[in-house]
Amino acid sequence: MGVNWPDSTGHHWWTTLENNFVLEASEDEYSGVVVDADRLPADGAAFARSLAASLSYWQSVGKKGVWLKLPVDRSEFVPIAVKEGFKYHHAEEAYLMLTYWIPDEPSLLPANASHQVGVGGFVINDQMEVVLVVQEKYRGWALDGVWKLPTGFIQESEEIYTGAIREVQEETGVDTEFVDVVAFRHAHNVAFQKSDLFFICMLRPLSSAIKIDETEIQAAKWMPLEEFVKQPFIQEDHMFQKIMDICIQRLRKCYCGLTAHNVVSKFDGRQSTLYYNVGEPEDVNCDAA
Amino acid sequence: MGVNWPDSTGHHWWTTLENNFVLEASEDEYSGVVVDADRLPADGAAFARSLAASLSYWQSVGKKGVWLKLPVDRSEFVPIAVKEGFKYHHAEEAYLMLTYWIPDEPSLLPANASHQVGVGGFVINDQMEVVLVVQEKYRGWALDGVWKLPTGFIQESEEIYTGAIREVQEETGVDTEFVDVVAFRHAHNVAFQKSDLFFICMLRPLSSAIKIDETEIQAAKWMPLEEFVKQPFIQEDHMFQKIMDICIQRLRKCYCGLTAHNVVSKFDGRQSTLYYNVGEPEDVNCDAA
Repeated sequence: MGVNWPDSTGHHWWTTLENNFVLEASEDEYSGVVVDADRLPADGAAFARSLAASLSYWQSVGKKGVWLKLPVDRSEFVPIAVKEGFKYHHAEEAYLMLTYWIPDEPSLLPANASHQVGVGGFVINDQMEVVLVVQEKYRGWALDGVWKLPTGFIQESEEIYTGAIREVQEETGVDTEFVDVVAFRHAHNVAFQKSDLFFICMLRPLSSAIKIDETEIQAAKWMPLEEFVKQPFIQEDHMFQKIMDICIQRLRKCYCGLTAHNVVSKFDGRQSTLYYNVGEPEDVNCDAA
Repeated sequence: MGVNWPDSTGHHWWTTLENNFVLEASEDEYSGVVVDADRLPADGAAFARSLAASLSYWQSVGKKGVWLKLPVDRSEFVPIAVKEGFKYHHAEEAYLMLTYWIPDEPSLLPANASHQVGVGGFVINDQMEVVLVVQEKYRGWALDGVWKLPTGFIQESEEIYTGAIREVQEETGVDTEFVDVVAFRHAHNVAFQKSDLFFICMLRPLSSAIKIDETEIQAAKWMPLEEFVKQPFIQEDHMFQKIMDICIQRLRKCYCGLTAHNVVSKFDGRQSTLYYNVGEPEDVNCDAA
């Protein structure tokens, strides 16, 4: 919804602003202004004039945060907005988002995305004998010769459970179904100072034939669980050891993972997934985890 | 580590490149190039010449991905890089990161951060009588008159459990300690088409006096649990009802949450937090959750 910002007398505001047109924009529910990226002026000089005039106008009418999305084909406007005091907020391939906080108080604008989300698939057959493992093509020295679980990042708007199934399928060709999330890891300063959430998912195999993705994977195979766990890579590492302990407790039904449940909330009308435990460990003779 | 890219004869490459200096850069472990943001040319014309020459050179030596971080005070270089074929990757307040994938095949460069992470604090006293609730100052119509749990986003490099404690402290003045994560929600297309992970944390109160953060919170109080759950906001919403069911099962010790454990892995040398269940429900007479 484009807003023309008429003044309170009913006249259009621009008669009072020396013909510097205020940028087309809509309002948000927090006294903010969202500039219309599809209706920016044609050239840099006009954009510079409009931007300065717009800020004065928005300040005069008590606006707080300004959102300015510049499509990549308007990259020549970026230095103009920076010169006017705009700050970078985030960028996607198609655009750069800049913001301007008008009040003389700390900005209440929400932050940029802070996390990437990875998944690992613990795929094991019902007899608890063999686990699906891969060797990666592009691996650091720490992973040389190591057979590891298939892992990857979830894609835009993808579920954790579908991401785990997809990554296993892409890397190894094996079809699986999701059982539960057995644990997750939270680490910081991973890529571009962002944080990383990594979910270990137990998956049930639905097929066994292996066909690797040759761009990313060197080799994949079914490996006896015992042999997998005995690798120095796991035995000498507190974290991997703990993760395997949990997975094995889970296999023995001595541990509850978090299952995925579709929920819709009236609050935001959004379909989303709630992860929580259901049921109790089935075997009362379990060791303490 | 700046790399001068000498050619294989030992001469410096630039004698063969018509005096267009290749940008100072280091290599990454994936045949990539990371341009040194602190040693960019002084002006746009020199930058444009160097960038074109650099791409030719990097291509000739088999490089794949190029990372170009432009500090905000070099924003005038943004349109130059875009014109040369660079793509926006991500931005923080201080810089814009652009990338260029040289090979004639799909880019293997990692994606931008995809998620924001929120936390909610379920703070209840040992007698299971009163829960800590707030009314937000800037709330949508859906939250009008509603008493809700304190919530917020975790900060850069913050733990989920410390983030929950901090948000409760900031919004209400109440000190707490972390018990466990009882469940989490995954939703998509929340802010800027990013996804949202929201962790519901059970916290034990260590103080009771309330002092609200007046910039964000309208009111806070201790509310009888029964009264809290009876609000239409919860009763008429499948998701909130389910979350409260889980929290109450947890209070009755009929549900295992995920506790937080510090782990260090040799794999990346990183201190991180692993969340997993410990122990079993203590009361064998629990209803099925």
